[in-house]
Amino acid sequence: MKLHASFATLAHRLALGVLLLLSAHAEAQNDPLPSWNDGAAKQAILTLVKETTTPGSPRFVDPVARIATFDQDGTTWVEQPLYSQVVFAFHQLGVMAARDPKLKEVEPFKTVLSGDRKAIAKLTVPDLEKILAVTHTGMTVEVFQKSVQDWVTSAQHPRFHHLYTELVYQPMLEVMQYLRANGFKTYIVTGGGQDFVRVYSERVYGIPREQVVGSTAGTTFGYRDGKTELTKEPRDVRVDDKEGKPIGIHLMIGRRPLAAFGNSTGDQEMLEYTQDGGGMRLMMLVHHDDATREYAYGPESKIGTFSDALLAEAQKRGWVIISMKKDWKRIFAWEK
Amino acid sequence: MKLHASFATLAHRLALGVLLLLSAHAEAQNDPLPSWNDGAAKQAILTLVKETTTPGSPRFVDPVARIATFDQDGTTWVEQPLYSQVVFAFHQLGVMAARDPKLKEVEPFKTVLSGDRKAIAKLTVPDLEKILAVTHTGMTVEVFQKSVQDWVTSAQHPRFHHLYTELVYQPMLEVMQYLRANGFKTYIVTGGGQDFVRVYSERVYGIPREQVVGSTAGTTFGYRDGKTELTKEPRDVRVDDKEGKPIGIHLMIGRRPLAAFGNSTGDQEMLEYTQDGGGMRLMMLVHHDDATREYAYGPESKIGTFSDALLAEAQKRGWVIISMKKDWKRIFAWEK
Repeated sequence: MKLHASFATLAHRLALGVLLLLSAHAEAQNDPLPSWNDGAAKQAILTLVKETTTPGSPRFVDPVARIATFDQDGTTWVEQPLYSQVVFAFHQLGVMAARDPKLKEVEPFKTVLSGDRKAIAKLTVPDLEKILAVTHTGMTVEVFQKSVQDWVTSAQHPRFHHLYTELVYQPMLEVMQYLRANGFKTYIVTGGGQDFVRVYSERVYGIPREQVVGSTAGTTFGYRDGKTELTKEPRDVRVDDKEGKPIGIHLMIGRRPLAAFGNSTGDQEMLEYTQDGGGMRLMMLVHHDDATREYAYGPESKIGTFSDALLAEAQKRGWVIISMKKDWKRIFAWEK
Repeated sequence: MKLHASFATLAHRLALGVLLLLSAHAEAQNDPLPSWNDGAAKQAILTLVKETTTPGSPRFVDPVARIATFDQDGTTWVEQPLYSQVVFAFHQLGVMAARDPKLKEVEPFKTVLSGDRKAIAKLTVPDLEKILAVTHTGMTVEVFQKSVQDWVTSAQHPRFHHLYTELVYQPMLEVMQYLRANGFKTYIVTGGGQDFVRVYSERVYGIPREQVVGSTAGTTFGYRDGKTELTKEPRDVRVDDKEGKPIGIHLMIGRRPLAAFGNSTGDQEMLEYTQDGGGMRLMMLVHHDDATREYAYGPESKIGTFSDALLAEAQKRGWVIISMKKDWKRIFAWEK
């Protein structure tokens, strides 16, 4: 009897063990955020989705109002050592100078084309505006799209030696996919150019062009050889940063987001505007604290500032900080 | 034998008749456009959907590019005797004057509030702009939305004695539903106010707010009692009419439509821009030629002009004319 009982106990324990293993395996397979470590950040995302999408939940939100907005530079892809779009502009200037050598004789283009890093680092904001204007306007929408497409499918990041579009954060892609699987509409809301990001947003983020909200300038409608065309112009610039983000969200979406993701002072107003919609909302900030796998930068950084004031506001308002170091198992899809 | 043969023939005929009846019934039930009479217009819509959505078709279009744009006034709802939004503005002026009687002493408000139809008919474009500015700006987005909501759920059309939102064209609602059922994204692209139409677009057209492209003005971001708010401003006006429609489509959607529906010279550039995208596209114009059930108006009308020049362009370019009189079995859902 005793022997039988032991066998029974053993068999029972074995069966239980197999069940537990199977269950853990199933859970890992069903984990919608496999690149996230367990913790407050991951839990906040899971909780938002559960509470706002479970029928009968007191916090249930109608699918039409399930809007999630993501800043791009520093939130969904690498923004160091330079914003990708600035790298594109410098590159495009070279492409243009090859066709029109006179550009090489005019400042600030001359400095950029010289490749002199120290001189380039000293370029002023009006200099950068001139560079952006000449590389981003004065051509049709289609010609501009082609120039971005050429760059985005060939240019490599100086440190990672990968295409810039391969430097998107895998954990954020998982959040986007998870939200969409639960009836959310995902948007990029970026200080970067709307027409720039639209070139790769579908392929890289699964976000269609019409769900990209970014900085814009005017377009002129006209005809060439009897065909309609839109030409990009250096006027009527709308900067989609800081207070420009809620304004852009109202213009392009017309509804406060249910969840908003950022990483810098440029996202503060978007997160405030999201939270002030009332009810359950999720506001998250990516903190770049992983110099080994990506970059570590804070108030001292010239771009993507995560200032002390922003951190204080985040704590006061209960926004969730994402530590790249602690919360992300892996940062890039190609990481081992 | 003969008798038997006759019985057999009769039985066969009866069975065939029943089958035909059943089949006609099933067809009627499966008709995605039951308010349309058979004809070139209905066929053009069915053909577009079949050719662009059937896998393997040489004209198959990826779902992300299935964009359909609809003008509103005169294309999806009644625009006579006045644009609904002008009726709203006149009404709203009365609401505001009840709170602020000084408005009654200032022109052009005084004229509108007098109710003197002859004097109102003489108002100039700058007068109308002043009326639109005072009724559409200077308040938060939410306060404006509430004022539209109040009007749209109570005001009745002077001839039809129905809410304005009940004066949408049932055949066009069917087109929208049919396109969406086939993977199209449907947009309103209107000269009317984007913020105005968004108030009822979901309920009336099944079109979410973010798929309304209309005329816009600026908004200012600020704080009141520590909460973020957006205030509507009478600056940075973008008129979404004529060349403003392709510009608005590029701004808000970033892609040429596969199908575009209009009714006036204000839609001409949108239809040209659509067609010039190449491949199979559908451009349609609603012709108001039914004075009995709705209105009949052409070049002589002040609004919604269907000019001789537009008709000539439509014929030259192969755009499809929708005759309200001949193509539509019924115009309104409540019609008997």
